[in-house]
Amino acid sequence: MSLNIGNLMAFKQITSAKNSYIKELVLLKEKSRARKKSGLFLIEGVREIGLAIKGGYTIDTLLFYPELFSEEQLNALTTSQHNTIEISKEVYQKLAHRETTEGVIAVAKANEFSLINLSFKNKNPLILIAEAPEKPGNIGALLRTADAANIDAVIIANPKTDLYNPNIIRSSVGCIFTNQIATGTTSEIIQFLKENNINIYCAALQASKNYHTQDYTKPTALVVGTEATGLSEEWLESSSQNIIIPMQGEIDSMNVSVAAGILIFEAKRQRNFL
Amino acid sequence: MSLNIGNLMAFKQITSAKNSYIKELVLLKEKSRARKKSGLFLIEGVREIGLAIKGGYTIDTLLFYPELFSEEQLNALTTSQHNTIEISKEVYQKLAHRETTEGVIAVAKANEFSLINLSFKNKNPLILIAEAPEKPGNIGALLRTADAANIDAVIIANPKTDLYNPNIIRSSVGCIFTNQIATGTTSEIIQFLKENNINIYCAALQASKNYHTQDYTKPTALVVGTEATGLSEEWLESSSQNIIIPMQGEIDSMNVSVAAGILIFEAKRQRNFL
Repeated sequence: MSLNIGNLMAFKQITSAKNSYIKELVLLKEKSRARKKSGLFLIEGVREIGLAIKGGYTIDTLLFYPELFSEEQLNALTTSQHNTIEISKEVYQKLAHRETTEGVIAVAKANEFSLINLSFKNKNPLILIAEAPEKPGNIGALLRTADAANIDAVIIANPKTDLYNPNIIRSSVGCIFTNQIATGTTSEIIQFLKENNINIYCAALQASKNYHTQDYTKPTALVVGTEATGLSEEWLESSSQNIIIPMQGEIDSMNVSVAAGILIFEAKRQRNFL
Repeated sequence: MSLNIGNLMAFKQITSAKNSYIKELVLLKEKSRARKKSGLFLIEGVREIGLAIKGGYTIDTLLFYPELFSEEQLNALTTSQHNTIEISKEVYQKLAHRETTEGVIAVAKANEFSLINLSFKNKNPLILIAEAPEKPGNIGALLRTADAANIDAVIIANPKTDLYNPNIIRSSVGCIFTNQIATGTTSEIIQFLKENNINIYCAALQASKNYHTQDYTKPTALVVGTEATGLSEEWLESSSQNIIIPMQGEIDSMNVSVAAGILIFEAKRQRNFL
């Protein structure tokens, strides 16, 4: 039941988790295939929804649970045209992914993440490329770092999951919406970089120079692979220069999002954070 | 049953997960209190056990499940004096924490992590300090970065958990054993740093200078707080200089292990990785 007695019938209400529309939304939350088929995905949380709107995403429907999220908050969140549905606690708990709950979930239209949509304001763009990253937490951390550094784009090569996975949205704290992002096969991305005369610096153990000895002030793509297997041969063959973070301890690997952060901020430092 | 028929009775065998010793070990795995009380903890995995031995840890008991871990592997792992117990699949599954299983678990004696035990070979030590880090994954990533950079010590201020939490050991891929580590209250650590004339650089939003403008070639402690609340007032009052990583995006925070990595490697760059 709604607490907003004055507006009791203002919004469509759904109280049963067995409602067919809610079942569809649960699939959007859980299944990459359902997201791909419908072109829709779920966003949970005020900050994340706000960043998506700011990032140009179209909200299809907003669902709110009035005991946690007031109509006033709803009005403050968005002014665009979309459906609004008041949901019961039962429905909300079915849709919510996070432990800390804010009472609002958006159904949004997915972007295509095409390489051809990338545009660079910066004459010397700085791009992060991650090949086949596996853990949503690492992808989220990469996106947060990319946002903080305000780099020109993040490109995911051969993605293992669609980027609208709730764990990625969550761990990126909404930076999935603030970065310019593209996905593609490694071949497509290498072709794109070559056509755009962007230098390719592959983080790799073989034939590498220490990362801090290289000049990243020209158009630069920093390319990182997985912790387990590194980058594919295809990347290494197309590398302008392989780079390495000197490893001076007992262990020969670093968390991929930490490594990417070190490389990105060395490039930013060389560019005087401009 | 053992596959090593020739040595069938060479080792004590435990086949029941209801064995009282095994129950104690399960408590060591699950309960910080049990670890503190006994001064023992579990290590899973060949690499991790090897790093602990190399790091001077005393192994009390090695438990192995012979279908996954042979006697030959066991002999290669360690030559020191300790109990060895052959365990059944049932017992192994009860004790194992990880999904990828190697069949070997060590019971090891805990270190005290005292500040007074820290010793610096380097005249200008480089130290990472994290105040009250919460997520085991972040602590693990910090320890991996510290190992890679071969810094002089990692100090955890006001720890929220004991460091022998299996999730920390796991996410550090054994770097809990390769770093010189201490814990203490913030007050104790500040006193230690002042007594040793170590400059304190607090990562903070207030009164901060851009991190890359500072000189980290002298004795340096880089201090990071939690993502949610940053550093305590006590740290900020004792800071030689607050430093900040410029944030140029929509989001005002970075993953703490990424931020620490950027700071540590800027210090290493300034020191020419010596």
